[in-house]
Amino acid sequence: MKDSIRVIDSIQEMREYRSLIYETKNIGFVPTMGYLHEGHLSLVEQSNKESDITIVSIYVNPTQFGENEDLQTYPRDIDRDLDLLCKYNVDAVFYPNNKEMYPEGYLTWVEVEKLSSLYCGRSRPTHFKGVSTIVSKLINIVRPLYLYMGEKDFQQIAVLKKMIEDLNYDTYIRPCPIVREIDGLALSSRNAYLNEKERRNALSLYEAQILAKEMIYKGERNIDTVISKMRKLINEKDGRIDYIEFVDPHTLELKADLIGTLRVLMAVYIGKTRLIDNFEITIN
Amino acid sequence: MKDSIRVIDSIQEMREYRSLIYETKNIGFVPTMGYLHEGHLSLVEQSNKESDITIVSIYVNPTQFGENEDLQTYPRDIDRDLDLLCKYNVDAVFYPNNKEMYPEGYLTWVEVEKLSSLYCGRSRPTHFKGVSTIVSKLINIVRPLYLYMGEKDFQQIAVLKKMIEDLNYDTYIRPCPIVREIDGLALSSRNAYLNEKERRNALSLYEAQILAKEMIYKGERNIDTVISKMRKLINEKDGRIDYIEFVDPHTLELKADLIGTLRVLMAVYIGKTRLIDNFEITIN
Repeated sequence: MKDSIRVIDSIQEMREYRSLIYETKNIGFVPTMGYLHEGHLSLVEQSNKESDITIVSIYVNPTQFGENEDLQTYPRDIDRDLDLLCKYNVDAVFYPNNKEMYPEGYLTWVEVEKLSSLYCGRSRPTHFKGVSTIVSKLINIVRPLYLYMGEKDFQQIAVLKKMIEDLNYDTYIRPCPIVREIDGLALSSRNAYLNEKERRNALSLYEAQILAKEMIYKGERNIDTVISKMRKLINEKDGRIDYIEFVDPHTLELKADLIGTLRVLMAVYIGKTRLIDNFEITIN
Repeated sequence: MKDSIRVIDSIQEMREYRSLIYETKNIGFVPTMGYLHEGHLSLVEQSNKESDITIVSIYVNPTQFGENEDLQTYPRDIDRDLDLLCKYNVDAVFYPNNKEMYPEGYLTWVEVEKLSSLYCGRSRPTHFKGVSTIVSKLINIVRPLYLYMGEKDFQQIAVLKKMIEDLNYDTYIRPCPIVREIDGLALSSRNAYLNEKERRNALSLYEAQILAKEMIYKGERNIDTVISKMRKLINEKDGRIDYIEFVDPHTLELKADLIGTLRVLMAVYIGKTRLIDNFEITIN
C-alpha cells in the first residue's frame, strides 16, 4: 500500500526507470486503457503476488478503435485511477500520450493473421492490429516477464499469446478470470455507457450463460440448439447479437461438437454499447 | 582471434546465452544470410571496435524471398563462414533453422508501411515485410544494443530504422559503408551467380555511378539527364534496369532537384541476377 504513486509520462523516462531495475527482479505488467474497475485491480493484485515489481500502463490506444467507434467518448479519469492504484503495490504507472506513442509519420504495424479476423475482428477489422502493435511497443519499453490480462478479452489474449510466441518475446501472458458485478454482469469500462434500463438488459449476457450451462448439464448436445435459446433470451431483452460462438480455447477454431473443454464467446449490442463476455464449459 | 567459435542453433539456448551476459556489456549484432564476404566481415570488425560482445547470425530467411526468387539457389556454406568468422572476435554465431524460426502455424508479421513498397518493394512486394519480421524476431532473441548493417542494402536500413523507432526497440542501427571489389563491383553473396561475361557487365553499375558523379561535378543539374546517361551505359552492357532513383537519404522520398545530399539507389538485372547498389552525392 502506497500513499503516492510514481507516474511516468515519457518513453525515455520509462526506459531509464526500467534500466535501473536489477535483471534478477521479475517485472509484472498490467496494460490498461484506464477507467479502472475491480477487473483491472484483480490483475494488479495477481502481479503483486507473483512479481517483484508491478508496472501499470494507462493509455487509451487510438489505433485499436475503428473509425466509427467510441474513441472520443471512451471514459477517462486519471485521478480516480491513481487513487485506486494507491491501494496496491504499484511501482510505476506508465501514462504516455498519443504524440509519444504514435508520432507524426508513424508507419509500423504488428499483425497476427487469421486470429485477428475472427469473431470481434469481423465487426472490428482493424482492432487487433492496433492491439498487437501497441502491446508490442509496450513490451519493448517495459520489458516485463509477465503480462497480466483479463479473460474477458479472451480473443485478445489468444492474439497476443500468438504474437509473443511468433515474435520470440521473452514475456508470458498470465490470464486472470473475469470479475463480475454481484448480479453477474462482467466488469467493463464500457458499462459506464449504459443507462438504467440498458444496465438491466445487459444482464442477459450472463443469463444466457446460465441458460446454456443448464441446458448442457441437463444433456443437450446440439450447439445450434443452445445458441438459438441464448439468442432468444438476449433478443427478448433488446440485445442485438453480434456473435455467439463455441470455440476451441487455444486455437479459437469453431467447435462442431459439445465435447471436451470449449469457450463460448459472445458480443452483444445493448443500445449503442457493444459488450463482450465469455465462459468456459467442459463436457466429459 | 579465436580458433573455434560457439555456434548456437536453438532459440532457447541463444536466450540462455544472452541472459548470462551482464547488463553493462554492449552487445553488437550482425545479422547475415551467410555466404560471408568482406562486406559482412567489415560489419563484424566494426562491432569488435565498438561493442563488448559480438554476435553474428547466419540464417537464410525464407520470408524475404518472393515466390519466383532465388531462395532455393541462394549460396550457402556454413563451414566456410565459420572459418572466416574465426579470424574475428565473435562471441557466438546464431544459426537457427526454419522450423525454429517459423514453426507450423506461424501467423505474425511486422510491416513498415510506405517505405516497404518503394523501389525494391515495387518488384519485391513482400520482401521488406519478411525483413522487418525476421529482424524483429532476432532483436527479441538477441537483444543487442547495436545492429550492424551494410549500406549496400540502403532501403533495408531505412525500413529497419523506422521499425526500430516506431516499435520503441532499445536498439540502434550502425550503418557501415559498402565494400567493393578492386574494380568497383559492390560485394554481394549474389555475385556468385554471375558467369565471366556477366561479371564484366555487372561493372556497369559502378561505371554508371562514376559517370553520374562526373556529370554532376561538371555542372549538370538535371536529374533526368543524368539518369538517362546512366541507363544508356548500363543497357549497353546488357543490364536490364529495374530502377535508378535519386532520393532523400532519410525519408527515401524522390528528389526533384540536385541540391544538398542525395542518395542514388539502383537495381539492375545482369542476366538473371538482380544486383543493387547505391551511392551518396552532395551538391552545395
